Parts: sequence; C-alpha cells; structure tokens
Amino acid sequence: MIIRIQCSDRVGLVAAVSDILAKNAMNIESMREFVDKEAGKFFLRVTTDKEPASDKLAGQLQEALPEKASIDISRKSRDKKVVILVTKEYHCLSDILTRNHFNTLGAKVQAVIGNHEILQDICDRFNIPFTYISHEGKNKEAFEKELKEKIQSYSFDYIVLAKFMRILSDEFVAAFPYRIINIHHSFLPAFIGASPYRQAFERGVKLIGATAHFVTSLLDEGPIIEQQIIRINHTYSPGDMIVAGKEIETSVLAKALSLVFEDRVFVSNNKTVVFD
Amino acid sequence: MIIRIQCSDRVGLVAAVSDILAKNAMNIESMREFVDKEAGKFFLRVTTDKEPASDKLAGQLQEALPEKASIDISRKSRDKKVVILVTKEYHCLSDILTRNHFNTLGAKVQAVIGNHEILQDICDRFNIPFTYISHEGKNKEAFEKELKEKIQSYSFDYIVLAKFMRILSDEFVAAFPYRIINIHHSFLPAFIGASPYRQAFERGVKLIGATAHFVTSLLDEGPIIEQQIIRINHTYSPGDMIVAGKEIETSVLAKALSLVFEDRVFVSNNKTVVFD
Amino acid sequence: MIIRIQCSDRVGLVAAVSDILAKNAMNIESMREFVDKEAGKFFLRVTTDKEPASDKLAGQLQEALPEKASIDISRKSRDKKVVILVTKEYHCLSDILTRNHFNTLGAKVQAVIGNHEILQDICDRFNIPFTYISHEGKNKEAFEKELKEKIQSYSFDYIVLAKFMRILSDEFVAAFPYRIINIHHSFLPAFIGASPYRQAFERGVKLIGATAHFVTSLLDEGPIIEQQIIRINHTYSPGDMIVAGKEIETSVLAKALSLVFEDRVFVSNNKTVVFD
Amino acid sequence: MIIRIQCSDRVGLVAAVSDILAKNAMNIESMREFVDKEAGKFFLRVTTDKEPASDKLAGQLQEALPEKASIDISRKSRDKKVVILVTKEYHCLSDILTRNHFNTLGAKVQAVIGNHEILQDICDRFNIPFTYISHEGKNKEAFEKELKEKIQSYSFDYIVLAKFMRILSDEFVAAFPYRIINIHHSFLPAFIGASPYRQAFERGVKLIGATAHFVTSLLDEGPIIEQQIIRINHTYSPGDMIVAGKEIETSVLAKALSLVFEDRVFVSNNKTVVFD
Repeated sequence: MIIRIQCSDRVGLVAAVSDILAKNAMNIESMREFVDKEAGKFFLRVTTDKEPASDKLAGQLQEALPEKASIDISRKSRDKKVVILVTKEYHCLSDILTRNHFNTLGAKVQAVIGNHEILQDICDRFNIPFTYISHEGKNKEAFEKELKEKIQSYSFDYIVLAKFMRILSDEFVAAFPYRIINIHHSFLPAFIGASPYRQAFERGVKLIGATAHFVTSLLDEGPIIEQQIIRINHTYSPGDMIVAGKEIETSVLAKALSLVFEDRVFVSNNKTVVFD
Repeated sequence: MIIRIQCSDRVGLVAAVSDILAKNAMNIESMREFVDKEAGKFFLRVTTDKEPASDKLAGQLQEALPEKASIDISRKSRDKKVVILVTKEYHCLSDILTRNHFNTLGAKVQAVIGNHEILQDICDRFNIPFTYISHEGKNKEAFEKELKEKIQSYSFDYIVLAKFMRILSDEFVAAFPYRIINIHHSFLPAFIGASPYRQAFERGVKLIGATAHFVTSLLDEGPIIEQQIIRINHTYSPGDMIVAGKEIETSVLAKALSLVFEDRVFVSNNKTVVFD
Repeated sequence: MIIRIQCSDRVGLVAAVSDILAKNAMNIESMREFVDKEAGKFFLRVTTDKEPASDKLAGQLQEALPEKASIDISRKSRDKKVVILVTKEYHCLSDILTRNHFNTLGAKVQAVIGNHEILQDICDRFNIPFTYISHEGKNKEAFEKELKEKIQSYSFDYIVLAKFMRILSDEFVAAFPYRIINIHHSFLPAFIGASPYRQAFERGVKLIGATAHFVTSLLDEGPIIEQQIIRINHTYSPGDMIVAGKEIETSVLAKALSLVFEDRVFVSNNKTVVFD
Repeated sequence: MIIRIQCSDRVGLVAAVSDILAKNAMNIESMREFVDKEAGKFFLRVTTDKEPASDKLAGQLQEALPEKASIDISRKSRDKKVVILVTKEYHCLSDILTRNHFNTLGAKVQAVIGNHEILQDICDRFNIPFTYISHEGKNKEAFEKELKEKIQSYSFDYIVLAKFMRILSDEFVAAFPYRIINIHHSFLPAFIGASPYRQAFERGVKLIGATAHFVTSLLDEGPIIEQQIIRINHTYSPGDMIVAGKEIETSVLAKALSLVFEDRVFVSNNKTVVFD
C-alpha cells in the first residue's frame, strides 16, 4: 500500500501514523518524511506490505491527524489512467505508447487527442484511440470546450501534454488542478517562452535542458517535477539543438511520469516534494 | 539531534521510536527509513530539533527495540575528528585541509601522517601537525606498529586514506572496523588493483571514475560509500587520465566524507545504506 | 560529403588532403584530426559541402597518402542499412523501430531476426519483416548457419545486437569484422559475464552503466563505442537495477548507433576514435 | 606549439595552413576546425611537435590567410599569467591557489586583490601577494582607478574574478577585452541578477548550476566558456543551495580556466568556440 499524507506540522505525527499502521499489523517497507519549516508543513510517504481496506484506514488516520490533512491511499498494483494531448512531434508520444504497450508505464493510456492529424498513425499501430480536434477556425473557448468534453468522456487520473503546443486557458487548467503534466523544452526558468533553442543558440549556452512540470495558470511556471540537461557545444545549430532536445525531453517526461504514477510527488506552494 | 538505528526488522519499529521522540517533545525534522528485506534488517535515521541528554534517550530506545539494536545518537553540532594518511599526491589532502581551515569539512583534522615527506609543507602552511613515518627499511609489521601508535596518540573518529599508497594488513584494518575511509582511483570493481588508468587506457573506456569506500580486509572491496565518473575520449593518454582522475578523486572523497561526517552512512553486509 | 582516412602518420598528411579538396573546390565544413603517437597512426574526418564523384576523389587521395591508407567516402544523405538481432527484451528494439519509422535513425532497418517469437508483434506494428530462428534443438553451428544465411539475404552495413542473448562464435564474428554492434548491460569492464545486475547488487555499487561496443572474438571485450551510467542507491533490488538498466541501455545504444551511422567512429587496436 | 587562427571563411584555408606547417617540417599532433556558416567565420586550432621561431611562422601564415586574420601562436610550455580579484568567499580562490602552488594551474598567479581583507590570510599561506583595495567611501570611478593601477602594475594575460562581488563599469571592462573571466553563481541565463539561490529556491528547481564567462559590458551576458549543474531536491534550503553551489562554482571556474589557459577558447559574436 502507498500512503501519502500532507498536513500542517506538529510533534508526534510520525508516531501517530506508524502506531495506526502497527495496530493494523502493516509492516513499513519504506518511509520518507519531510518537514517544510518555512511553511510549517509535514509530508509523509509510507509503503507497507499489507493492503487492508483503505476506507477504514483513512478514517483512523484522519482522526489522528490535524484537521484538513490530505490523505491519499493507493494500492501498489493500481495503474493510473491517463489521457495524452499532442500536436505534431512524435518522440514523447512514441515513448509513452511503447511503455504503455509493454506494461511498463505504470499507467494505462486511455486515449490520445491531437490538434493535428499526423500522430493518428502511430496511435493506430498501438491500438490506442486517437481523436483529432483541430484548433483552426475556432476561438480558444470553443476549442477548449471540445477538448474538455472529449477528455471528460474518459476516466483518468492525469492529462499529459506530450508536446502539445497550444497554450491552455486559466479556465481549462483550473478544471484539472495538479492533474495536467507538461514537458517544456528548456531548462526552466531559462528561455521561458517561444523558441527556446533559438534563444539558447543566440546565447551560446553549453548545456540545454528540459523541464517536466504541473500546469497551472502561470504559463511555464507551475511546480517543477523533474529537470535534466545535456551538454552541447559551438557546433550545434538551432536545428541540432532541437534534435538533441528531443532526447532529453523524452527522458525527462518519462522520469516525471514514473515519479507521479508511483505517488512520489507532492505539490505545495508551487513547488514539489519528490520522494524518489 | 541525529539518531541512527540499525536492527533486525519487525512490525512497529517506527511507531516505537517516534513514540519515544514524541514523549520527549522532540519534533522530527527529517526521517529516512529502509528495510533490507533479503537480510531482514531495519535502518532508520531521524533528525530532531531538540537535543536532550542522549544517555536517557538511548536507554529508552534500547528498551523499545530488538536486542542487539545498534543505536547511535549525536549532536548535530559536534564535529567529527579525523587523522589523515597520505603518500605523495596533494590533491585530496589540499582539498581536505582547505575545508578544514575554513570550517566547512564537518570534521576537525587532528593530524596528517605521511610515508613520504613531501606533503609536510602544505600541512605546515595550514598549521596542521604532520608526522613523517617512512615505510622504508622496515617490514610491514614494524611500519604499521609505528603508524598505529602515532594514530592512537590522537583522539579520532575516522582515519582517511587521502591517496595513501601502501596496502594495510588485515590486522591493522581490523583494529579500526569501518573507521578507515579510502579513495580508490577507479570506478570499482572495474580496474581493481594496480595502474587502473593504464588499464583504462588499454581498454579504451569512455568514462573513468573513482570510488570512496570503507577499508576492510578485502583489498579494494570494502563497502562503497560514493562513486562518480567523468567522460574521457580517445585523445586521453594514461597521463591525461591521471590528471582528470585527480579531479574526480577529490570530488568523490569530499562527497563521501561529508556523507559520513553527517552520519548518513550505515554499513551492512559489505554494502552501505546512504540516506543522502 | 564525409571523408574518413586512417593511415600511418607522417608530416604533411593534412596538407595533402586539404590541398586535394581545395583543388576540387570543396569547402571544408568541419575537420577533426587525431594522431595516436603510441601507434603512429593518423585519423582524419572531414565534412565538405560539395559532393563530387567519389571514385575520382578516392583515387586522388590514395595517390597522396601512405600505402594501405584506409579511405572511406560517403554522401551525407545516404542512410546506412541495418539488420537487427534480438531475443526477448523490447526496449532497445522499440526505440530503434520508432526512430526508423520516423526517419531519425540515420539508417534503414532491413529486417529483424529473433531467437524467440515474442518481438514479432512489435515488428509487425511497424511493418518491419521479422524472422524467427530458434536456437533450440540445434548446435551452435547449425543455428549460426541459419542466422548467417538469413542475414546475408539482406543488403546491410551493420548488424545490431539489440539485446541478443546468445554468444556468437568466433567464426560468425569473423565474417563481419567491425560490423556487429552490441549493447552490454554493464559499465564494462566491471561485471563482465553473466548477471551483471546481481553482481552489482552484491557489490553495492552506487552507479550502474551500459556499454555499446563492436563485437570481436573477445567476448565483451571488443572496441567500446559509448558508455553511460546512472546513479542508483541501496534501495535498488536486482530487479530495480534491471529496470533502470533498460533505460541506460536504450540510451547508450541509440547514441552509439548515431555515432556509427554518421561515420564518426574509427577502430584501431581494439579501441575506437570517436569524433563526436 | 599551439596555433590559433580566426578569420573569414573561404575554400583552401586548411590546405594553406597545413602546407606552411609541412614546409616547416612541423608535424600536426591535433587539429580542430570549425566553420560558423551563419557568420562566415573560420576557426582553427593546431598543435604541433616542433616549435620554430613564431615571428617567421606568423608572417608566413598572415600572407596565406585572408586580411584581418587573427593568428595566435604560443609555446605549449609557456604558463599564462593571471591576477585574481576576490571579495570574501574562499572556495574558488583556494582552489586556484592550491593548483598554482603545485604547478597544475597552467598559469602563474601574479597577485590577488580583494575589496575585503579576509582572504589576505590564505594568500599569505601560499606566499602570494595580496592587496586590499576597499570600495568603501569611494565612488566607483575612484575604486576602479585604484584597481586598474594595481592590476596594471603586474604583467598578466587574464584577470580572474574569483567571486568578486562588485559590478565593473563598462569603461573598466573595455580596458581588458576578453581578458576578464568571471564565475557566475547560476546556470545562466536562468536567475540572472542578485540572489540566484533564493530565486532557485522560490522556483523549486531540481538542478542548480554555475557559469564561467568572459566579462563584457553586458552584465552576466558575456560569452559563456563553461557551465555545469548539480542535482538538488526539495530538502535544500537557500543556504544548502549556496553550499552546494560553491562546489559547482569551484569546478566550473577550474574547468574554464584550464580551457582558456590551454588556448582552447575562441570568442566570436558574444559566444565561444571551445575545442576541448
């Protein structure tokens, strides 16, 4: 069982939780705890061997913890469900579809939605439903209404923007708080905004990176889940950087998704606590 | 306060420990726990805000834990004490002396002992006592007897082999179990033994590394604390690899020492558990 | 055009080559040169803008260079052709098939041959011919004869062992000198041989790696093309290491293939010179 | 001998240069060439075995190359000379002084100038002249006049800002074009300006970095020589980031200096070409 708790800090929280687990004869396999002193917040992730009924356990925990404690209990074996949004680029999507196909994603892809048609083919090859919803000839509101209806026709835990190149409105984002994950093609906060590789080329940087983050109403500024970089040099044209960037984007998104799908990520104050 | 516990595993250990801490009104700042299922062992590292008398706390913990539990309690502010052994190479020693001088080592260097005289000068510059104990014209037993007497004339927690190029006997090592830390000039277990860079050159590897480990009677095979690598290429001669290797050796030893000095390292079954 | 030259070293080689290029009005876009002084060998890789008839150019170069100079001229646009050998694991193969499908592999996959049937399905999904050649109920000679005949029924530049878990005989390997590329699941030369992750687990290493190399008659000891590592820790079981290892194997093989397919790799004295 | 050439590009440049070297019976040990097609610029770095009189060689090269070609010839054995500017932090300075002391810096430290007195002591320990020039009670012009006079009292190739925390005026910078090297405590261009670690903390990044660059009139925006990063996590306070940052700053500056001192760095269009 994976138990995640986030609440205001006070003395005795670990004792209270571990006492309840012991009384349920649940052996703790791993435990990670963090106290954010500035914010006065307590974060706990526990994995246990036994997996009793979660309702009763949640009730016991709720009683022992501060008011408004956030308690999240999930079975290790339960795969998350995800809907993927894409535009034209194949690299992140193909990686996700491959892992999904071979049951190593830690989640089940329910569907893919694209604002271009080009990635229909790769979805077909993996028997994953693809829906084409063009943004053309519509205002943002109409486009997002269509998107939202389609997304909500599926059961899902997370929406993954696997190189989805449209900026989502605050309204759309607010409908799915901390459930939308994006891959951004730069080492944020460097090169925020458009054409990061052109910017990187002009600036002559020696490293380029990618950032996976939760999407909030702050464009490119939601809580960062994972970042990685690769070394480049003066011989890289902007085009070479894009090619190299795809590798790192794929890798960062895959890592971020595995962290999220294994319930290792908490969000607090526009930052993440990641027990990796 | 930093509390480290290592014992056989059973249900309720975290509850027992955290309960005692709560009763002592000690707030848990961070907690890391690991269960080695194969070995049936439990490892716990807790840091707390309050720092009560450790004897009473140790007694309470001992009572609540399995027999033979190893309990280690230390004040965060207490610097460890170390004795350094060297031969001729300056890079690791200079780095340690610099950190020691500016109070960022997390330990206090008590003395340096060299089997060559050459590093006397740098010790003098930092006002650190240096003793020259040559291995020449003596058998190993006599050499080590001298070493040991000198070492034992100091109060110390750890002995650091900062590029000490003599192989220590089993008897010597056994006198200081898991208290001797060595830096080995390869990514162990690759290139065990002599001339690792010549071996690496002949083999044409693309990465070279270094390994910091506790010294046991198994030459080059004690529990690994930290490893890092750097990228090399075909243009590196064995000499270039040695130069590059010094950088990584310095960095790995510094990292390993900081982990050990912060009580983040447990040893079990010739391996380490590192709560970094 | 990409021109690769490997020959014994002497004064004036670069002058001779660049003079010929200038006379053909070919502008040098990039040039990398290396002299292996121990071996007295000269390596040169030049890319040019113009791409004249390669026969005439090769003749001019041959005349100007030492006897037995190896000269390799290829058009930048020519994709290499490859045949892939696999057993059961999907990760390297899927990555290669995806890149092949989207024309970013720098080569064209001609066919996949497996000694198990399981990867037939993923090949079918990408419309790549798959042949099942079992090793069961045959001696090695008979198995390899079948393999070889099938391989030789295709036009190809390289054979890629994308997690092919049978050891090839010296005779087989000798038939395709420096044309067989393997991915080995360890940071060679550490953990040579079977079960490297079990070995790594027992040894308690903090980094695991993977190595792509040309296959020679020396098992696991051919010229290394690329190596990468990832950080692990005490929480990794051998199974976790295998999962983590797959990521690094995929990445290392992809990098090695891109280096080879771009004609950036020379082999000499069981080592590689890589102009990356 | 190390020969560096930077000029406008045209066909035959490598042929012209290598022809001259061959006529002087100079064997090319390594050659790196790069053409910046956007800018139409040619960069060449050649190392040779023989080291003839450089005046004659420079004349021959000048004649064969485009007008305004920049030609730089230096003996491999000649150590560069440097003056170091510091404020209060010891880590970069100590590293440089240690390497200088043991003759592995590739340069000779002529003097250290500090706008605080605190680093006098460490300079004394290494017998390096230290001058205290306070910025207090003076306007920038007066302060920089003093600095400049002191600096110019030494013979030097480069000025190294080893954590010098005053912003230099355009006039000062213009007096030493591409001869001032700075270490900046962030992965530029992220967190430009003050308190980068506080900014990094607020933003919740997972990596922090450092950047070594030539100083130009564009604050924090001169040509980047080297960048590196290290991984951090949610447990890092701004203070922890500063501690971790010092490690990476030391490492990045050391690497950048070794590249510059080995004549591996060209500057062009506010970017560097680094033949590493």
